[in-house]
Amino acid sequence: MKNMIDLRSDTVTKPTAEMLEAMMQAEVGDDVFGEDPTVRALEEKTAQIFGMEAGIFCPSGTMTNQIAIKILTQPQQEVICDKRSHIYNYEGGGIAFNSLCSVRLVDGPRGILSKEEIEAAINSDDIHYPQTALVALENTVNKGGGAYYTIDQIIPIADLCKKHQLPLHLDGARVFNALTASSDDANDYGKYFNTISVCLSKGLGAPVGSVLLGSQELIKKAKRVRKVLGGGMRQAGYLAAAGIYALDHHVKRLTEDHQKASVLADHLKEMSLVHEVLPVETNIVIFSLHNISTTDFLAGLKEKDILAIPFGKHDIRMVTHLEFDDAKLEKVLNVLKKMDRKPV
Amino acid sequence: MKNMIDLRSDTVTKPTAEMLEAMMQAEVGDDVFGEDPTVRALEEKTAQIFGMEAGIFCPSGTMTNQIAIKILTQPQQEVICDKRSHIYNYEGGGIAFNSLCSVRLVDGPRGILSKEEIEAAINSDDIHYPQTALVALENTVNKGGGAYYTIDQIIPIADLCKKHQLPLHLDGARVFNALTASSDDANDYGKYFNTISVCLSKGLGAPVGSVLLGSQELIKKAKRVRKVLGGGMRQAGYLAAAGIYALDHHVKRLTEDHQKASVLADHLKEMSLVHEVLPVETNIVIFSLHNISTTDFLAGLKEKDILAIPFGKHDIRMVTHLEFDDAKLEKVLNVLKKMDRKPV
Amino acid sequence: MKNMIDLRSDTVTKPTAEMLEAMMQAEVGDDVFGEDPTVRALEEKTAQIFGMEAGIFCPSGTMTNQIAIKILTQPQQEVICDKRSHIYNYEGGGIAFNSLCSVRLVDGPRGILSKEEIEAAINSDDIHYPQTALVALENTVNKGGGAYYTIDQIIPIADLCKKHQLPLHLDGARVFNALTASSDDANDYGKYFNTISVCLSKGLGAPVGSVLLGSQELIKKAKRVRKVLGGGMRQAGYLAAAGIYALDHHVKRLTEDHQKASVLADHLKEMSLVHEVLPVETNIVIFSLHNISTTDFLAGLKEKDILAIPFGKHDIRMVTHLEFDDAKLEKVLNVLKKMDRKPV
Amino acid sequence: MKNMIDLRSDTVTKPTAEMLEAMMQAEVGDDVFGEDPTVRALEEKTAQIFGMEAGIFCPSGTMTNQIAIKILTQPQQEVICDKRSHIYNYEGGGIAFNSLCSVRLVDGPRGILSKEEIEAAINSDDIHYPQTALVALENTVNKGGGAYYTIDQIIPIADLCKKHQLPLHLDGARVFNALTASSDDANDYGKYFNTISVCLSKGLGAPVGSVLLGSQELIKKAKRVRKVLGGGMRQAGYLAAAGIYALDHHVKRLTEDHQKASVLADHLKEMSLVHEVLPVETNIVIFSLHNISTTDFLAGLKEKDILAIPFGKHDIRMVTHLEFDDAKLEKVLNVLKKMDRKPV
Repeated sequence: MKNMIDLRSDTVTKPTAEMLEAMMQAEVGDDVFGEDPTVRALEEKTAQIFGMEAGIFCPSGTMTNQIAIKILTQPQQEVICDKRSHIYNYEGGGIAFNSLCSVRLVDGPRGILSKEEIEAAINSDDIHYPQTALVALENTVNKGGGAYYTIDQIIPIADLCKKHQLPLHLDGARVFNALTASSDDANDYGKYFNTISVCLSKGLGAPVGSVLLGSQELIKKAKRVRKVLGGGMRQAGYLAAAGIYALDHHVKRLTEDHQKASVLADHLKEMSLVHEVLPVETNIVIFSLHNISTTDFLAGLKEKDILAIPFGKHDIRMVTHLEFDDAKLEKVLNVLKKMDRKPV
Repeated sequence: MKNMIDLRSDTVTKPTAEMLEAMMQAEVGDDVFGEDPTVRALEEKTAQIFGMEAGIFCPSGTMTNQIAIKILTQPQQEVICDKRSHIYNYEGGGIAFNSLCSVRLVDGPRGILSKEEIEAAINSDDIHYPQTALVALENTVNKGGGAYYTIDQIIPIADLCKKHQLPLHLDGARVFNALTASSDDANDYGKYFNTISVCLSKGLGAPVGSVLLGSQELIKKAKRVRKVLGGGMRQAGYLAAAGIYALDHHVKRLTEDHQKASVLADHLKEMSLVHEVLPVETNIVIFSLHNISTTDFLAGLKEKDILAIPFGKHDIRMVTHLEFDDAKLEKVLNVLKKMDRKPV
Repeated sequence: MKNMIDLRSDTVTKPTAEMLEAMMQAEVGDDVFGEDPTVRALEEKTAQIFGMEAGIFCPSGTMTNQIAIKILTQPQQEVICDKRSHIYNYEGGGIAFNSLCSVRLVDGPRGILSKEEIEAAINSDDIHYPQTALVALENTVNKGGGAYYTIDQIIPIADLCKKHQLPLHLDGARVFNALTASSDDANDYGKYFNTISVCLSKGLGAPVGSVLLGSQELIKKAKRVRKVLGGGMRQAGYLAAAGIYALDHHVKRLTEDHQKASVLADHLKEMSLVHEVLPVETNIVIFSLHNISTTDFLAGLKEKDILAIPFGKHDIRMVTHLEFDDAKLEKVLNVLKKMDRKPV
Repeated sequence: MKNMIDLRSDTVTKPTAEMLEAMMQAEVGDDVFGEDPTVRALEEKTAQIFGMEAGIFCPSGTMTNQIAIKILTQPQQEVICDKRSHIYNYEGGGIAFNSLCSVRLVDGPRGILSKEEIEAAINSDDIHYPQTALVALENTVNKGGGAYYTIDQIIPIADLCKKHQLPLHLDGARVFNALTASSDDANDYGKYFNTISVCLSKGLGAPVGSVLLGSQELIKKAKRVRKVLGGGMRQAGYLAAAGIYALDHHVKRLTEDHQKASVLADHLKEMSLVHEVLPVETNIVIFSLHNISTTDFLAGLKEKDILAIPFGKHDIRMVTHLEFDDAKLEKVLNVLKKMDRKPV
């Protein structure tokens, strides 16, 4: 894998030398006893950034999302989310498995929901229906091609939720990409969401982990759920140190990823093999093919040491990230150019 | 309620004098000890009609459906069903609550699924997705306006399920309406479904209960689940006797309900207040209104001692049944005629 | 089974002619729409007897118990109960299955718990432990040989629960036996329990059903759970009518069952085959054997048309009830006398 | 915490300089794509040690235990384990929460179960009881004061399980302590257990993680469950490298911990404040006090920079580990000596 250009996901990045140095210098303790100072520092720092009271560090974004759903719902209730959402599609059926909740799937353009769509999905008080209990947004929307909400789109949804006494969760797997693209202030988010899952191992480049944010009371509940799921780690400070480093050094540079994604998309649009490229808003490029199968297209790339990922049955996804530098972009553009010329 | 014409559902019927007589003559025993002869007779009779090995009597169709889903799946798996299906919409979120399973919702025309739609909904073997474990059909489709599958539509789906080693469940809340309308043979069903839920308290007119059918092995498992859900009843033979009577005397007459539904629909189509009437295939009539709200429309009917039910936000449902005789049909048609003439 | 003397349980009784008449005359409606007047009358009557706000009729005592546990707990919490309790031993593992709760088993003498034993079983606030959420008593204690709590034993437990903000549930499968034996007033129970499950099909002799009692708010929640478990029945008034009849006519006569149980026990104590008879407080007689296996003992009884039930590996249980009249008692005593004389 | 002598648990140890170096040099990849070579090396190495087919690395021993229970059971089944077992007492109620299973608690001397005790706890095939589905042992038994099974005690239990077609799980939180004390061969374990949870962060001194071992088929299932619990980590090789280092360098030295625990116990036995010391078999010392409360005793130790942990309401636990060297042992003995002389 050494010389591969890996565009399958922004999760594939490895720590930079500086990040690794920070990890190995970390002061650690037994976090099950609440005594790892680096974990606590990461939790507090992340909470502060988003204007929330408290945080809890977990081994994955799936765990932070699943814990949030669990602490905000009861069995036999229902979660409203977009049909493209990660929590419904890619978390192993966890809404039903961990929380015994149903889903009411909404179909927002590119996964971006409006207040009206959500309101129409709230069940009336009738025992035939599960009780609507939670609204969950994703920002950016992975399966929506990296589309993002601005705070102005979030506010009316938050108002609706308050009116109906429904908590609002944010799957912030790529929330820093959304903040970078929208120029919104992270600190405002704390006013509108009950819980936010912030991933450190995607664009930010940390090796492992996500932080779930919420009120003191909710994070206390989250600790119980993390325990029973087996997410409590002992000397986790090594991982947390990478997260702190990432928050300090890898946020601003996300604009570079977005620019490269945009250049990639412009190039793909010109290709005869490419049917359509979804609008690129952040670091995700999703496109469909014609005259070639996804399997053949991916094989052609792999032959030239480039990895991308099939997305559904007809689409390809490429994700830019901190290991994808200018030279690699250049190379990918060249390979794509040659592939398009080849007779198929 | 005495003089009301109740078209809200075919569940509202009360036992006829003959059925009540059969109930009170029933020989009973403690069914938790497996000793109620009338319950056993009903279970065997129903199994025989559908060409299946065994049956288990339960207090409701929700319980028979939920038990079937439970014994055919494991937690963290997924059920494929139409987005209109009763098991998803009207059973209190039971797929998630009782079985910890996700749903993959398909959108078949009027709730009738094709082999192709189902095949496209089967997940690949990837730990991000819940494992597809069950396909569930509903015949007739309540929310699809009483649309029905013929056996010729069922066979290719059953073949697909066998190919993918997926069990196939039938929610037969109104399966006798489907059989009546299609002229298919109930006995063929046993070849294609792993489990069938047969309701006795809708068109058949029994007061309480459904029978779940399946193999000996599955019904043995079903008994454990019925126990833990609290569905085991002691001297249930009084209810079972009504079911036996209904199977003997109330199946053929369903054609009358279908005819009356058809007459109703033809009349509604002519009304200026009615926007659209879904095609009527069995005993369910669903129609949308214009120039009048559902609330006002229902209030207008109620004033004249006629009950119907709102179905979703813009539609009305009427269901014909054994208490809805020719005189009542006549009266309903007259009331509708007068309502349409009134200025709105 | 016609001429059998069935002492296996008080659930085996069939309706008397008068009760059957009451059933046949019942006014019924669709209880899923909340329109069965007889069901509502039964729920109100039972609530009134126990001084509680509301009730909900269910097909079994397992369902009323399981619903109570569900509405009073959250997943990952813990229920304190005696190790002999029905909810732990005989409801198919429902505490874990329906409510995802753990159990903390206490060992009270004959299943009668004290305040001190319960207090010692409450977990401290530590994420390693499930959170203590509910205390459940059973009165009388089936597996404790029909031992009963007096209200004076209940009050300190209720006080403890209030102090720790723990709800208190009563499995009242045989609560009328307890009330009869203790001469306590049923109406006082409402002050001390959050929920009470009252069974109609044991000593009271109704064919099917139990009523769960609680506050209006809890019973509203219970309706959702009953729905998802599949316990909602349509024209259930036929069963409810039997319950009303039983409450009116079959409560006082329970003293007769207790007297017969006492006579039985006195006789058993004298038998050389009997090792020990648990003290008889109500209508349950549990005894252990020596010099004969339970299988042989039960076979010897069955040969003479008498049924009893093995209880654990070395014990036999006999339960007296309204079909067990003086003549039958006489016959059982005679058969026991002859069995004891026989060489083994 | 810097100068504290921490005997609360063997989980509190921090990586040695050499272990940290190994972590820093680790080759990593995205383990969610199955591409972290160090994680795979750890999984294979651990499987090989125990003679099993495959392994899966998880963030905690709670997760490996909970996954094992999940993949070996179905909802509504029952797990047989000792009443002291970690899976029942200290995993947040996970048996019920994650697997919807009941427990049948056995009381073996110091948590060591015999074949006979287990056999008596297997339920008969009756729908009133949850189906017995799994036997789980713990070796060493934490709450049993570090008591251990020898392979000769395990074999008859494994034979019983095979006879009853019950899988057998081992919670090997401290399995290397058991192997060290018994001189048994780890490689034999694979013949007797279906799954083994091996903890790396207790006596072995790694910062984070456990490995679950089993057949290829079971570990494939385990990957689905780890996913839905949120235990899938990205570049987890840094943690796995510590585990590999620990397996290579920290197993043999466990005898030193056992010796120190023995010295500690001998000393405690002589103290007037100590009522009773449980026999010390490995690295755990549990003792009860008299004439002093646990709170006062722990406070007295803490004043002198020594930490121990209360265990239940009257006992104290001390655990020896790789940071507890001879000098620290000397100091603890001196402090205890002085505490005992002080008037209380």
